[in-house]
Amino acid sequence: MDGFSAILMAAGKGVRMRSSKPKVLHHIAGLSMIRHVVAAANHVAPEQTVVVVAPDNAEAIAGELGEDVEYAEQPEPLGTGHALQVALERVPAGTRHVLLLNGDMPLVTGTDLAALCHLHVDRAAALTLGYATLPLEQARDLGTLQRGARGKPIGVVEAAERDDRNGAPAMDAIVGAYAFDAAWVRGAVKRLSKHAQGELYVTDLVAMAVTEGRRVEAFEVASVRGCVGVNTRGQLANAEHAMQQRLREQAMAGGVTLIDPATVYIDATVRFGTDVVVKPNTTIGGASEIGNDVTLGPNAQVYDSIVGEGAVIGSAIVRASRIGAGAQVGPFSLLREGSELAAGAYVGAHAEIKASRIGAGTHVGHFSYVGDARVGDNANIGAGTVTCNYDGVNKHVTEIGDGAFIGSGSMLIAPLKIGKGALTGAGAVVREDVPDGGRVAGVPARAIASRSRQAG
Amino acid sequence: MDGFSAILMAAGKGVRMRSSKPKVLHHIAGLSMIRHVVAAANHVAPEQTVVVVAPDNAEAIAGELGEDVEYAEQPEPLGTGHALQVALERVPAGTRHVLLLNGDMPLVTGTDLAALCHLHVDRAAALTLGYATLPLEQARDLGTLQRGARGKPIGVVEAAERDDRNGAPAMDAIVGAYAFDAAWVRGAVKRLSKHAQGELYVTDLVAMAVTEGRRVEAFEVASVRGCVGVNTRGQLANAEHAMQQRLREQAMAGGVTLIDPATVYIDATVRFGTDVVVKPNTTIGGASEIGNDVTLGPNAQVYDSIVGEGAVIGSAIVRASRIGAGAQVGPFSLLREGSELAAGAYVGAHAEIKASRIGAGTHVGHFSYVGDARVGDNANIGAGTVTCNYDGVNKHVTEIGDGAFIGSGSMLIAPLKIGKGALTGAGAVVREDVPDGGRVAGVPARAIASRSRQAG
Amino acid sequence: MDGFSAILMAAGKGVRMRSSKPKVLHHIAGLSMIRHVVAAANHVAPEQTVVVVAPDNAEAIAGELGEDVEYAEQPEPLGTGHALQVALERVPAGTRHVLLLNGDMPLVTGTDLAALCHLHVDRAAALTLGYATLPLEQARDLGTLQRGARGKPIGVVEAAERDDRNGAPAMDAIVGAYAFDAAWVRGAVKRLSKHAQGELYVTDLVAMAVTEGRRVEAFEVASVRGCVGVNTRGQLANAEHAMQQRLREQAMAGGVTLIDPATVYIDATVRFGTDVVVKPNTTIGGASEIGNDVTLGPNAQVYDSIVGEGAVIGSAIVRASRIGAGAQVGPFSLLREGSELAAGAYVGAHAEIKASRIGAGTHVGHFSYVGDARVGDNANIGAGTVTCNYDGVNKHVTEIGDGAFIGSGSMLIAPLKIGKGALTGAGAVVREDVPDGGRVAGVPARAIASRSRQAG
Repeated sequence: MDGFSAILMAAGKGVRMRSSKPKVLHHIAGLSMIRHVVAAANHVAPEQTVVVVAPDNAEAIAGELGEDVEYAEQPEPLGTGHALQVALERVPAGTRHVLLLNGDMPLVTGTDLAALCHLHVDRAAALTLGYATLPLEQARDLGTLQRGARGKPIGVVEAAERDDRNGAPAMDAIVGAYAFDAAWVRGAVKRLSKHAQGELYVTDLVAMAVTEGRRVEAFEVASVRGCVGVNTRGQLANAEHAMQQRLREQAMAGGVTLIDPATVYIDATVRFGTDVVVKPNTTIGGASEIGNDVTLGPNAQVYDSIVGEGAVIGSAIVRASRIGAGAQVGPFSLLREGSELAAGAYVGAHAEIKASRIGAGTHVGHFSYVGDARVGDNANIGAGTVTCNYDGVNKHVTEIGDGAFIGSGSMLIAPLKIGKGALTGAGAVVREDVPDGGRVAGVPARAIASRSRQAG
Repeated sequence: MDGFSAILMAAGKGVRMRSSKPKVLHHIAGLSMIRHVVAAANHVAPEQTVVVVAPDNAEAIAGELGEDVEYAEQPEPLGTGHALQVALERVPAGTRHVLLLNGDMPLVTGTDLAALCHLHVDRAAALTLGYATLPLEQARDLGTLQRGARGKPIGVVEAAERDDRNGAPAMDAIVGAYAFDAAWVRGAVKRLSKHAQGELYVTDLVAMAVTEGRRVEAFEVASVRGCVGVNTRGQLANAEHAMQQRLREQAMAGGVTLIDPATVYIDATVRFGTDVVVKPNTTIGGASEIGNDVTLGPNAQVYDSIVGEGAVIGSAIVRASRIGAGAQVGPFSLLREGSELAAGAYVGAHAEIKASRIGAGTHVGHFSYVGDARVGDNANIGAGTVTCNYDGVNKHVTEIGDGAFIGSGSMLIAPLKIGKGALTGAGAVVREDVPDGGRVAGVPARAIASRSRQAG
Repeated sequence: MDGFSAILMAAGKGVRMRSSKPKVLHHIAGLSMIRHVVAAANHVAPEQTVVVVAPDNAEAIAGELGEDVEYAEQPEPLGTGHALQVALERVPAGTRHVLLLNGDMPLVTGTDLAALCHLHVDRAAALTLGYATLPLEQARDLGTLQRGARGKPIGVVEAAERDDRNGAPAMDAIVGAYAFDAAWVRGAVKRLSKHAQGELYVTDLVAMAVTEGRRVEAFEVASVRGCVGVNTRGQLANAEHAMQQRLREQAMAGGVTLIDPATVYIDATVRFGTDVVVKPNTTIGGASEIGNDVTLGPNAQVYDSIVGEGAVIGSAIVRASRIGAGAQVGPFSLLREGSELAAGAYVGAHAEIKASRIGAGTHVGHFSYVGDARVGDNANIGAGTVTCNYDGVNKHVTEIGDGAFIGSGSMLIAPLKIGKGALTGAGAVVREDVPDGGRVAGVPARAIASRSRQAG
């Protein structure tokens, strides 16, 4: 939308978190809270985004958000009104509207913010106030909307000034999302009165605008209902829970079966195909893409990985890897960064694979370590095989050709090249390359006569 | 009960599932939904069970249910009344009653259906209508029972024709379970009127029976309260959850402790003894039988296995195996199909056992692969041992005698026989049989002098 | 508080548990129920604690509680009044007050009991009755408080005598916690009338005291709201759930992030630092102490272990061990009793470590078994390494010096000493000590020329 500046308030200490980390940097569904809010604000395509930070968290927040946003430092914690004053100094003269958001509101959706801003512009309001209708229990610590004739907003009652003992079961709570006419608010913030400790409250702008005869609108920001703001670890858990519920419902609506939705953990950045089945206690994180007909879990963890159609990942862990169509990864196996399973590759139990390509139809069936390797198609890697890729100083590459048969307990001393169709005997310590069709055994391994295939 | 034919409607597409699989083949507690309904219907001992399928799911459903049931194909999706018409053509003339059920109703119990049928027969009703009293939220998409004088059922109001805005907090929703007088319903279905798209509704039979002065009864099918029908993945998850709650409560009532019932997943086919303790995030699936005083989990998965009294299975996976009394299976171990642990056998961490017998008191303490093996009693299998059972073409058997001591890192090249009380040195590659009491070491292994037992 | 004797009633059979174990010995958050109640009672510093047992559970309960408490045996199950009679025989003449508690009430807090006792003493009451205001559903099987003028307690209505059909939505249920004037109650219990089966009810003392003009007080024991008493496995699960909720909230309030609080399982004996992050499905048990900035899980299990600042424990299991600051333990690894990781030690995937010290900066990166070992700093233990610590009869120690490089697949036959900076080649079977800087390889291992470091 044209002419909007977004301002995010992130200066709060969050002392009730009992954390050495700035409150807005705590994570929800794999992203920091402030990133969720920045992403939601981006739905209104603001011309700038200004994040208000405090001296003691400026560096950490800048470390998280980098140069995608601008920063305004609030030198002292003098309230939301003061934070807005400080931020407005960075808003150019030509800006027509300001969207002001609390930084600890990870559940707010871009859809809600865009609707709030549209209402604001359409009605030519001086101020549009976001609220959510919440049960008393959740609204207890929040300011609430005061309405006048015909339900028009006329002010905000702070929680401390309110007596909830005989209150309604639900209240319209202020959530920390506002749109302002930029010209008006620039002047208005200077007219705010100080509260105790010299604080200025943004919420006082509502009554001010009404008094001045300016138009004030209210908009329900329904997306934050599960957790308006995060001030405690308990609220952090509530926000995580609400976000997970949202992500789980989205996945199910798109054709994913979650056997027990309550124990599937999905980052906001994950994409799913259809007819995926996710079994209990499974985490899918980072920029993962899960293809059609994939089965995950129970107890799977898949991070930043592409999983091809029909693949099956059991109680295994996959990080930053590519799993080909129809490939299988068995229980207690670990695929570390940079692994690639070709279509139909099979990794059984207790295997560890790192930065390696496993060819189509190749079996790594049992406990073993395959690191920095290029394994061809239809090869067999026996139990106990180790690619000895580390000499104490450097890492080296192992190449294994198509159809090779690596006997159990083989130690493959990299750099090493095992040819196509080659064989190593069980317990071989292989220090020298093996040609295509070659057969070696022993410690150290030496060529052996061609006979019936050696067990391994 | 005498004279009943059961008809199950399974033709629905379930487009909101976004699945390439027929809706009724999605699983609940380890069985397809249609199997649950067939099993429930079997409680009334029907003389036949007819499943109504559609052209595009007939094959898949027949693949699931086989020849236990008959099939009637509904060529076009012309509604439940039409499905009933099609099915009745397969019902023999002598049949006295028809039990008609939706196929996507996995929660319905045989107890409820038997009670419904008893009521139907006792009252000599033309039609007995199953309903469940549900909160408005759950009943919103369902037809509801219309009652006349003295609460008598007089018709069904379709959801689309109903205005729920000022409705009661709970409603008597139609669940898709009916008993009919066979003679009456054969004629009645032909008198049904077409709705939009030419559909015929079974529910119209209620008003028809009333108009014709026939007796109509209603029966509450309370068992479906958690999820009446499954049209979305969300409802599938709800049905799974409700079924799991039922299975968990049954287990607890029988003397099983579930530390966190919410994360124990039990297939409908599992049987438990008493004083079993199941720790969190544990799955017990298939035809498993868990003996008295067994401890499972956390993070255990036991499928299709018999677990003897007092056995302890930690964070391990057991498939299609037998675990003897007092045996222990440690964390990260995998027992694959066809494994058998004798009483008091011990499998520690990171072991993989496949199609092998492990004798009484034998220890497989550490990472190792034991496949296609017969291991005697009181043997010790060292860390890193591999039964090299695969030569690239065939699988071979390893036999290990009572009291044998297999040194760590031994490669046992099958087919192979290690005698009673025999010993293999650490790192031995054993290609030839070892006699009772024999001692071998080296690569390849050769007999060594009898001295103090070799470390291994 | 001065002059109190505590009496705990633990004679109940708990037949609905379907257990061979006494009811009060079932566990909640890692401790038996009776231990929780003893611990709560200890908050009032009683001069003695008498546990009333039955002939058939006396031995088991004494086995659990030992000599910390006294025992009174109730020969026949003649009710709570009779249990109190039996216990009072063990209470010395000089005792001024008696605190009587049900033994199956693990949720009761010492804070609540201390407050109840203070009220009792301050008001000079003959009897102070603990109750909890519960929804009808939970109160159904419990006696309820009968109040007279100005809300004064005048008696108890047993559940069987009560008609709940038109009852209030919440009731003041008797929870099984009472304080008595010792002198009065000694006489009063002898005046109790028998109910059916000859039972005496403690609850009848309320009306008796009122009738005799003695002061009676009531106190809400709010801590038991989640589960007043445990008579079924379902209630056991409810009590566990309520206790876990309490422990999770305490952890979060102290600065611990629980991503999904519902799947974190915490024993009552665990202590946490701040900025700990606990991922889903993680169990922290026994006397564990988790330092600041530690990350646990998902799927971690930590029992009886000290975890240093900033350590990261992934999907691993740690038992009775010490993890140094900044150490990492990777997935599928098992640290057994008596292991110690120095600061910055790294244990990767599939490692098993038992009763061993792993030095600072040392890597045990892959599948391996390290038992009874002392590994120096900055050493590297290759994949597949086994400390062959067991010779079939005894266990032996392996010592590995600082900076040693143990090649993959090395079998280290203990007792063995590998010197500082020494190297073993891949696949070496090492039977003899290796001096500082020595290099060995082969089967059995022999010294090799010093050349560029061998891959391993």
